[in-house]
Amino acid sequence: MEKKNQTLHYFILSDSIGETAQKVARAALVHFPSAKTVLHKYTFISNIEKIDEIIHDAVKYDGLLFMTIANSELASYVEAKCIETGLICYNLIQPFTLEIERRLGVNPTSLVGAQHELSDEYFDRIEAMEFCMKYDDGKDPKGIGEAEIVLLGISRTGKTPLSMYLATLGYKVCNLPLIPENDLPSIVFEINKNKIIGLTNNIEVVNKHREIRMLEYGIPKGSRYASENRVKQELDYADEVYRTLGCPVINVADRSIEETAHIISEIMKLTPHAF
Amino acid sequence: MEKKNQTLHYFILSDSIGETAQKVARAALVHFPSAKTVLHKYTFISNIEKIDEIIHDAVKYDGLLFMTIANSELASYVEAKCIETGLICYNLIQPFTLEIERRLGVNPTSLVGAQHELSDEYFDRIEAMEFCMKYDDGKDPKGIGEAEIVLLGISRTGKTPLSMYLATLGYKVCNLPLIPENDLPSIVFEINKNKIIGLTNNIEVVNKHREIRMLEYGIPKGSRYASENRVKQELDYADEVYRTLGCPVINVADRSIEETAHIISEIMKLTPHAF
Repeated sequence: MEKKNQTLHYFILSDSIGETAQKVARAALVHFPSAKTVLHKYTFISNIEKIDEIIHDAVKYDGLLFMTIANSELASYVEAKCIETGLICYNLIQPFTLEIERRLGVNPTSLVGAQHELSDEYFDRIEAMEFCMKYDDGKDPKGIGEAEIVLLGISRTGKTPLSMYLATLGYKVCNLPLIPENDLPSIVFEINKNKIIGLTNNIEVVNKHREIRMLEYGIPKGSRYASENRVKQELDYADEVYRTLGCPVINVADRSIEETAHIISEIMKLTPHAF
Repeated sequence: MEKKNQTLHYFILSDSIGETAQKVARAALVHFPSAKTVLHKYTFISNIEKIDEIIHDAVKYDGLLFMTIANSELASYVEAKCIETGLICYNLIQPFTLEIERRLGVNPTSLVGAQHELSDEYFDRIEAMEFCMKYDDGKDPKGIGEAEIVLLGISRTGKTPLSMYLATLGYKVCNLPLIPENDLPSIVFEINKNKIIGLTNNIEVVNKHREIRMLEYGIPKGSRYASENRVKQELDYADEVYRTLGCPVINVADRSIEETAHIISEIMKLTPHAF
């Protein structure tokens, strides 16, 4: 296929902050890694004047539009303007709400930005995030008792980012570093085993991460922390702990945080938090 | 409109973890707050046998399908099966990639779950999350110098969850509590003012949050921490600090974390991190 070497201008039109539309656009664009793209983002759209201005801009760049506007009059106005000017607009709300309305026989609410209402669920999520911060990196073993998920792993198995991501989804997570020289707090052996997940990694990945960290600290290559022997010793120790606990083990090498989090939610049969 | 009082079964079909499809379904369903819904989630779909099984299940419940499968043969198979069985399926990839392909003259990669490749951007994000954990709640004022965003606020203005959310987006954030009795670290007055955001809240919201927290701690109502006078004193002190710094101020009352984060990214003209 002939390379047109063009720049794609894509437009996000939202009555809120545009997260959903951006996620969809991103999911499509990721399949064109070499494409030059320019994002034009319009949020909190609430009137026709603003839409006229956006359409004017979109025509200039022959933009591709991704829209999440709940108000059906405004959304229809965008669509009419696009037909008039020959722009392509993907409506990422009404096609779905119309079908759901048909099935349920209930009118949709016209709530704008309705995804972020300050519900109980929302406050649970805030609580989970504060919990995660409080109990990161084994700072206080009390958290182990209260957590829904306890993550174990040696240094550089991604415990902290994974905990934070799970917390933003609303899960109370506590993580604890495994160090061969330190005894694990006894509570780890007393809690429900189904709450525990062991994280592991490939030797060379851990080693590479640690070498980078050592360089940042100004410590030359070949230190004990980053040596292959040391990493192997730590990973073996972790395996032993996991066997003793009988907990599931996830190798995080080549897995993104989101993928690991997804595996955990499947293993633990967690109720999906809906956001 | 007649209430059918039905349950809506919606199906997520993904070749990865189904985040995008779930986000779209959620954005539509949120407009039907009273609807009874059941989520059927199928992830890491990679073969026709699995699809047959899912279609069989979907037919049973007359499910509404939201699909993100990058492999166009598998996606077409799902669509053909849906036409055959009368199911409705929203394809949330190919309509967009086909149009982008037409415009750019470049074939899409068939990368599965391509959103989470372990790129530099991804590692920056991990670093931001670790940074946030390290420098939460003024634990170490060194972070203030290195941060891209410095959040100030009295207790219960949501500094920690907001920092975590911004960190998951890849921003290096540091937050610092404002307490009238404590001097701010001098570095706050030395750094680039454009990095600083002041958070505030309504007296009654702060007060309510604090009362809840006090109850959790077993402290009866009417303690100094949760009194209106004390909250007013703290908020006044914060206002004074913000005036001295000349920093933008955001009132977080009635705003979700996502909305506040969005406002910050607009104020600071941050390059949107693309995930």
